[in-house]
Amino acid sequence: MQSFPSSLLNGYRNFMSGRYVDERERYRSLAEEGQSPTTLVIACSDSRSAPETIFDAGPGELFVIRNVANMVPPHEPDGQFHATSAALEFGVKVLKVRDIVVMGHGRCGGIRAALDTTSAPLSDGDFIGKWMGLLKPATEQIQNNDVMTPAERQTALERISIRNSLNNLRSFPDIQMLEESGNLALHGAWFDISTGELWVMDAKTGDFTRPEV
Amino acid sequence: MQSFPSSLLNGYRNFMSGRYVDERERYRSLAEEGQSPTTLVIACSDSRSAPETIFDAGPGELFVIRNVANMVPPHEPDGQFHATSAALEFGVKVLKVRDIVVMGHGRCGGIRAALDTTSAPLSDGDFIGKWMGLLKPATEQIQNNDVMTPAERQTALERISIRNSLNNLRSFPDIQMLEESGNLALHGAWFDISTGELWVMDAKTGDFTRPEV
Amino acid sequence: MQSFPSSLLNGYRNFMSGRYVDERERYRSLAEEGQSPTTLVIACSDSRSAPETIFDAGPGELFVIRNVANMVPPHEPDGQFHATSAALEFGVKVLKVRDIVVMGHGRCGGIRAALDTTSAPLSDGDFIGKWMGLLKPATEQIQNNDVMTPAERQTALERISIRNSLNNLRSFPDIQMLEESGNLALHGAWFDISTGELWVMDAKTGDFTRPEV
Amino acid sequence: MQSFPSSLLNGYRNFMSGRYVDERERYRSLAEEGQSPTTLVIACSDSRSAPETIFDAGPGELFVIRNVANMVPPHEPDGQFHATSAALEFGVKVLKVRDIVVMGHGRCGGIRAALDTTSAPLSDGDFIGKWMGLLKPATEQIQNNDVMTPAERQTALERISIRNSLNNLRSFPDIQMLEESGNLALHGAWFDISTGELWVMDAKTGDFTRPEV
Repeated sequence: MQSFPSSLLNGYRNFMSGRYVDERERYRSLAEEGQSPTTLVIACSDSRSAPETIFDAGPGELFVIRNVANMVPPHEPDGQFHATSAALEFGVKVLKVRDIVVMGHGRCGGIRAALDTTSAPLSDGDFIGKWMGLLKPATEQIQNNDVMTPAERQTALERISIRNSLNNLRSFPDIQMLEESGNLALHGAWFDISTGELWVMDAKTGDFTRPEV
Repeated sequence: MQSFPSSLLNGYRNFMSGRYVDERERYRSLAEEGQSPTTLVIACSDSRSAPETIFDAGPGELFVIRNVANMVPPHEPDGQFHATSAALEFGVKVLKVRDIVVMGHGRCGGIRAALDTTSAPLSDGDFIGKWMGLLKPATEQIQNNDVMTPAERQTALERISIRNSLNNLRSFPDIQMLEESGNLALHGAWFDISTGELWVMDAKTGDFTRPEV
Repeated sequence: MQSFPSSLLNGYRNFMSGRYVDERERYRSLAEEGQSPTTLVIACSDSRSAPETIFDAGPGELFVIRNVANMVPPHEPDGQFHATSAALEFGVKVLKVRDIVVMGHGRCGGIRAALDTTSAPLSDGDFIGKWMGLLKPATEQIQNNDVMTPAERQTALERISIRNSLNNLRSFPDIQMLEESGNLALHGAWFDISTGELWVMDAKTGDFTRPEV
Repeated sequence: MQSFPSSLLNGYRNFMSGRYVDERERYRSLAEEGQSPTTLVIACSDSRSAPETIFDAGPGELFVIRNVANMVPPHEPDGQFHATSAALEFGVKVLKVRDIVVMGHGRCGGIRAALDTTSAPLSDGDFIGKWMGLLKPATEQIQNNDVMTPAERQTALERISIRNSLNNLRSFPDIQMLEESGNLALHGAWFDISTGELWVMDAKTGDFTRPEV
């Protein structure tokens, strides 16, 4: 019926005549020996925050989960379909990654939707509304703050969401255990789309600062 | 406590001194005007199948969902947290993308886990087991097929998973309606990690062939 | 009785043998012709945020008010002694400055004292407590926010204080009138002590960003 | 709306490429460990009398209050907003400074305004008039003295204002007590803008002389 998007086909041609030429052997060996990334990144679906781009990562380097607002639900072994939890389990238990990075970013549409008290639900199912409900108590506190600007509230909640995801990661017994035994490290990062700045979370205080680069 | 992975910081430095220099204005304008990608890609979390890499896509081009085995659960408006459905809703209803691409790939670990009848559940929750259950009836048929080789069974299920995701996409009333009215097109693709080949699904037959490039 | 602090005398000697030598004529002419600065800066008394240092300003350039947390009380023509209002009046009506800059800074001790709910008033008079009361409603909102880190709350209130001072400046009829007629411009700035970064307030949104330097 | 004054941005660039480079570590450590200045200076808002310039002081050295004519109101614990008293309290009780310097200067516009009997009030509030009223009895005596020249009257009142501020400082019970116990010393200084000379007050006699430098 519909033809495959030509922009993607053109991009694929660029890949094949460019990057792939240099990395042909790497792809082949990654196919034969399997992937063994040591870092799992949970990032936003946003088109401006691809971890492979921001971290200049090649094939085989990053195991990546992407959903709206880079969120991790709490551990709920209820027999339902859990995209994020399943991918986490795969990364931690099968691939045995050593680092998990939750990467948020500025101008996040999911966070904006969460803070927007005026819009009606998007649909009957309203999956976004439910999903952003993972941040509910924090969202309400930030929404009610009328002394910060909208942009300040947005940035605050973006960073709170990262800390919230990290807390929820620790509700997974395996992750908690691996972190405590020193076999897994959890990190937070926030990417400023407008300036290209990467802000890294201090694991102790939860504050974000720019690393010296 | 733990310091941010140095490989990521090094990659970020490369990004800032390389690609970002050329795209500074694009990032800035994407920050100010917001993202407006026309394509949503559902890809696997696998470290070897980053859509931005394979489609040589820049910032702002692809809205990306990544989970294990690039799967879409059926429409279930049950009030639970649905990472994938929420991101789909955001892409379709907020960003109003025109194309959705489900991209699978060879040597997929999630598919291999689904076909593997010998392993015990990975955890109490066994999120991967549940998640791969989305492919259950197809998986059982392929598992019981003893005239295909293991690699053939694997490739077969990888492609079945793509068609299964496309079918489930159509269980979302909005997606179905938009597709029927010609405002949204659904596509399948399969990336061969070992050769770099992209196989594109024929929308009518469901078969995968290589486009002329 | 007590002798004048030797560190200040030593510093004064450095001034006389260094900078003053170069600026002797400038001081003489500023003495004879009087000062005519075009910018008034309201800064914090903090020893790390001297505007002359941060803006590399020479004699005659900046008319400077310094108090705890760079605050401006609202216009209150009640016949009391108002250090800040008197200095504002002098700058605006006598010197006819064209720009007023409210400059806050990170790690502000006054802001920290305002956010600290555990300390008792410092003294019977408790002048700091009263003074920081200028920020009261905002302070309470920020204090009750338990999803931001202490450092995030501190930075938020520092910036709110700048906006609050700017609002209070506009409660002075003369300032309001001059601003409306385009003869006076009000600005906000925030200095990050730990990185040396200057963040400038967007007059329209109240947000702080770093100017390109 | 209005753009930040370009002269200040240029000055900030000079600061960052000059002085800040040398003092980067000092700023960082002052941010992390907090300020601990041992000297509090009360100076005039005048653009020609920045204490950091005259005493060649670096970041962290001087806690500075600046208002018109470097004045201290008497201790008035009346629950009003007192910029100067609050800053004094902060310096003395929180920072525990060891020295307080009241620094006046020649050609002071506030003192000139106080001596000028011909001008009408500047505004309804007439904050300067009220503020300079802190010097009222002395001002009247000097105004009525017709055997001193205008310049002599001006210098005389500038120095009287310094002694007046020192007296008012002693009306603060804590300051009085700390001075009596030898834990705090009060000083006066007068800066001659036209010659660069610093005159220091003899604590016993109240006279101003030039220290040997």
